[in-house]
Amino acid sequence: MRVGLIGLGAMGEPMAHNLASTGLLYAVWNRTPEKAWVVAQELNVLQADSPSQLAEWCDVVITCVSADKDVLEVIWALIPGLGPGKIVVDTSTVSSATAITASKMLEDHGANFLDAPVSGGVEGAKNAMLAMMVGGDEDVLERARQVLEQVSARIVLMGPVGSGQGTKAVNQVMAAGINQAVTEALAFAHELNLPMDKVIDVISGGAAGNWFLEHRGPSMTHAQFNPGFKLELHHKDLTICKRMAEEKGLQLPLTEQTIKDYQVLMNEGFGQEDISALYRLKP
Amino acid sequence: MRVGLIGLGAMGEPMAHNLASTGLLYAVWNRTPEKAWVVAQELNVLQADSPSQLAEWCDVVITCVSADKDVLEVIWALIPGLGPGKIVVDTSTVSSATAITASKMLEDHGANFLDAPVSGGVEGAKNAMLAMMVGGDEDVLERARQVLEQVSARIVLMGPVGSGQGTKAVNQVMAAGINQAVTEALAFAHELNLPMDKVIDVISGGAAGNWFLEHRGPSMTHAQFNPGFKLELHHKDLTICKRMAEEKGLQLPLTEQTIKDYQVLMNEGFGQEDISALYRLKP
Repeated sequence: MRVGLIGLGAMGEPMAHNLASTGLLYAVWNRTPEKAWVVAQELNVLQADSPSQLAEWCDVVITCVSADKDVLEVIWALIPGLGPGKIVVDTSTVSSATAITASKMLEDHGANFLDAPVSGGVEGAKNAMLAMMVGGDEDVLERARQVLEQVSARIVLMGPVGSGQGTKAVNQVMAAGINQAVTEALAFAHELNLPMDKVIDVISGGAAGNWFLEHRGPSMTHAQFNPGFKLELHHKDLTICKRMAEEKGLQLPLTEQTIKDYQVLMNEGFGQEDISALYRLKP
Repeated sequence: MRVGLIGLGAMGEPMAHNLASTGLLYAVWNRTPEKAWVVAQELNVLQADSPSQLAEWCDVVITCVSADKDVLEVIWALIPGLGPGKIVVDTSTVSSATAITASKMLEDHGANFLDAPVSGGVEGAKNAMLAMMVGGDEDVLERARQVLEQVSARIVLMGPVGSGQGTKAVNQVMAAGINQAVTEALAFAHELNLPMDKVIDVISGGAAGNWFLEHRGPSMTHAQFNPGFKLELHHKDLTICKRMAEEKGLQLPLTEQTIKDYQVLMNEGFGQEDISALYRLKP
């Protein structure tokens, strides 16, 4: 089975490494071709001239881009090279509506689609420990599973196309709340003059333990905010989540607060930092 | 080494089991003697007539009670049986000031004190997987460590007496925020008609993963709120945390919101339920 990967950003590049290490990766394409050239050389795989060439060469195409518009552009560009039996797996975080549109675009050409956004941070991408939330048909997932297992530790089929993205929206809302919870508590610890590294260590082992505390607590309390997960991307996701909730008549107070806080940080020029830069606003 | 345990509640009883299983537990005492009788029979240990008798018999006395007043009463009652070299380890969640007072009361009789509150829930107590936040002298901790390792997976010395309780206060603040984060996100998932068990499973594996989601998510989404950790006890702790923060001029918005929400639930008669009953308030 030949796998192609489109989008060699913070998440896509380590996924490419993991796919290459098992010999599954056949080719890559990236909007900035120089980046694709470097990765192709490094991993000893082909660099496609276009998404459609990649689609011609490969059985499974994984896309990993940033925004709804990018996903639809890439799908459009893939189509000339696609045909029956080929599978496109989009690991980007976009709306359920975009996933459904992408799936319909491919259906007409006999190809299959899975929306398969991931969580687990850059660490999870590097260690192939991502959690993958999949929307689509079970038999399509089964055909692609061997490939997806090279990048994910947990793959869960949530329902039809779009439900992977719905689940990712829930994940982003929870991540926002946890960011608020962890930064509030660590600011309190700081005020109490407690040894911060020890606080993070011991609390991580108990009932308030969480991934974010363990992986971002040490850096944020040392005023290091390298991404990780860029604050302005989380801001974009949360704005979509807020709208989705409003359509259902539901309020998301922590998400709304986080959107406001991130906006303050973006205005101050911190949009490219990790989401843990929220700690900057905690007195 | 002989160990005595005072307070056979939701956390104390499983700790007694773990200490008995390694032969370290010598005697128990409980405010309700019938409870102590049952546990003593079951574990084949002695039932002391009074805290002071337990203190006479044992080298290390572990206390596990509910409130500041209870800790000081028990310490007072222990004193006639204590002497040089004996160690009292209080695993209750109380204020740093109470810990310091308790330590001073014991100092005059040559005994040593550690404040050693724990986190990890009833599950952690049962599986001896608690995280223990210790305040006191390093050499006292080293003398008691063998005992404490029978109930804890992670033991961290935070600083002088009182700093264990300070750290526990931070833990309780973080737990409040995480409760808000998890219940807000799961209510959103419910509105999106996602399969809740799968949502909990997959999100637990990613960057929004946390102990509370994994251990309380399944029960709360099935409207089961058996404690666990009683809501009214967390309310009590958070009220103390809020006061501590105010003394430092710090605001804890999630803690303040949680105090209000718990008060609503307590007024409705849900104070004895697990803290995850916060999900009742999420539309």
